[in-house]
Amino acid sequence: MKLGTLKNGTRDGTLIVVSRDLRRAVHARSIVPTMQEAIENWAQVEPALRALYAALNAGRALEAFDFDPVAAAAPLPRAYQWCDGSAFLNHGRLMEKAFGISPVPDFETVPLMYQGASDDFLGPRDDVPLPSEAHGIDFEGEFAIMVDDVPMGCTAEQAAGHIKLLLQVNDVSLRAFTPIEMKKGFGFLQAKPSSSFAPVAVTPDELGGAWKEGRVHLPLRVCWNGTWFGHPNGGEMNFSFHQLIAHAAATRRLGAGTVIGSGTVSNADSSVGSACIAERRALEMITHGKPVSSFMRFGDTVHMEVLDADGHSVFGAIDQKVVSATPCAGETQTP
Amino acid sequence: MKLGTLKNGTRDGTLIVVSRDLRRAVHARSIVPTMQEAIENWAQVEPALRALYAALNAGRALEAFDFDPVAAAAPLPRAYQWCDGSAFLNHGRLMEKAFGISPVPDFETVPLMYQGASDDFLGPRDDVPLPSEAHGIDFEGEFAIMVDDVPMGCTAEQAAGHIKLLLQVNDVSLRAFTPIEMKKGFGFLQAKPSSSFAPVAVTPDELGGAWKEGRVHLPLRVCWNGTWFGHPNGGEMNFSFHQLIAHAAATRRLGAGTVIGSGTVSNADSSVGSACIAERRALEMITHGKPVSSFMRFGDTVHMEVLDADGHSVFGAIDQKVVSATPCAGETQTP
Repeated sequence: MKLGTLKNGTRDGTLIVVSRDLRRAVHARSIVPTMQEAIENWAQVEPALRALYAALNAGRALEAFDFDPVAAAAPLPRAYQWCDGSAFLNHGRLMEKAFGISPVPDFETVPLMYQGASDDFLGPRDDVPLPSEAHGIDFEGEFAIMVDDVPMGCTAEQAAGHIKLLLQVNDVSLRAFTPIEMKKGFGFLQAKPSSSFAPVAVTPDELGGAWKEGRVHLPLRVCWNGTWFGHPNGGEMNFSFHQLIAHAAATRRLGAGTVIGSGTVSNADSSVGSACIAERRALEMITHGKPVSSFMRFGDTVHMEVLDADGHSVFGAIDQKVVSATPCAGETQTP
Repeated sequence: MKLGTLKNGTRDGTLIVVSRDLRRAVHARSIVPTMQEAIENWAQVEPALRALYAALNAGRALEAFDFDPVAAAAPLPRAYQWCDGSAFLNHGRLMEKAFGISPVPDFETVPLMYQGASDDFLGPRDDVPLPSEAHGIDFEGEFAIMVDDVPMGCTAEQAAGHIKLLLQVNDVSLRAFTPIEMKKGFGFLQAKPSSSFAPVAVTPDELGGAWKEGRVHLPLRVCWNGTWFGHPNGGEMNFSFHQLIAHAAATRRLGAGTVIGSGTVSNADSSVGSACIAERRALEMITHGKPVSSFMRFGDTVHMEVLDADGHSVFGAIDQKVVSATPCAGETQTP
């Protein structure tokens, strides 16, 4: 099943069911009005949502309409929690090797994870407003999951049943702040502006055999300014999403609608490219002795999409442009 | 004006207006049903809420009832964003001196702040369930503010007008994880379980002259197991809440209902005691060469309260007991 959220002038938008081919959609409001309420009441609403999805795919849904990703918000436009892992160890290893960073303790046995901002997720075609090109603007292609209520102390085995939806993320990052904030030990704040999400969240069954052992075994295709940048595969994730959930829930429960990210997708085979510029720069550093690629400029675009084995888009595409943020003076910029 | 939230079996509870003396309350549902909706529509609802507050204080509010803090949730039971500063530099200086930690870069000029979990705030009399005494269970007495929508790039000067409510927090911390997570650079995750809040949030005018230059100029009184622990004053905050907001909003807008904390209240005069055990241990280390105090045990209680110049409680009291978390088996623990 594929679910999305249409912008409607409210902060939470309105929940829609989207057809498997991403062409048609239908309002879910007769079942549940928003994604947050859907995940809070998943057991109750899932059967009716699935019935509507089946009708939509069969061309039998009343009041169906063409799905327009430009009108889509993030599937969950704001969340009560967003924790982002760094579960592809190849990425961390490259960063260490290229820039001489000392290895993170327990890197291979304890997942790295930061608490991120979740009050303002961007839609798949929204511009990304940022204050300065000097901040080292980067994209990060990631997978993510959404859970229902997870109790404290949930094990990795128990976690599997709490994963209700899979998502695809552009975790926008400002690299000028990253080393500074890491050195302070308090984690990322200015380094991590609002994240963006692909048009639809999908139930795990939608991936068939490509969802396996808590990982998305599909390549994430990234283009920067219309040119291929990478297509690393999510199957190489060193920690599964089950393990990431258990890590996050070790000392607290996780509220329904918590979103947990994989960290930038990264593969040992460098011929598949990267899902973020920082990693390409690390590879350049290792190969050429210095980074060659610049970070993003205002006006640059990024495209991220996941195709299944038959070449069909799973989550729809992220297609975004980075733009200069409106100055604060006058304070006209409100959500 | 004082506002609170009563538990009612839903995740967001129901908004109430509480009398200045904290004895009486009245439902605000005819104006706005929840705190989140109130802060999103502050300009529209504030006048009616203030009128109801005036009527309640004058004994003229229809359907008023006795206010019971045991029935209170956190004023905002879950938030889309919680950023916690470390704005009392004395605390950081003591930790550095006692434990030989290298100074954080730009400590005195750039606020330290981490992104915290906000999906599950605890009420003022709720037990604090935690998995293990071995994790170094600590309390942290703090002040906090709640803002309406803050645009990206908001300056400290502009920030003042966005502060709608002041709050009092127990930022529960697990000290066994703190140095490990700081060293990794990704910030606090397992080290920071759910935070707890005093019964009411208050508008800044409620403090009179004690709210000045973006700081609460009142002592925060802390008792551990019924014994005085400290009463450091919020006026010694090195960065104002205005500066903390500007720091958080540097690269992104902040959604209405974002809560920003001061970090543990700490004063240069050690005779006023501390607002967290870690700091007392640091003082013991400096004085005696080793920490003497243990961290909290299951069954321990903490009391935190702020009295105004006339001895009246401003936010009501936090009175909590730390307890062993229900094991996950069977997964019966849901919110």
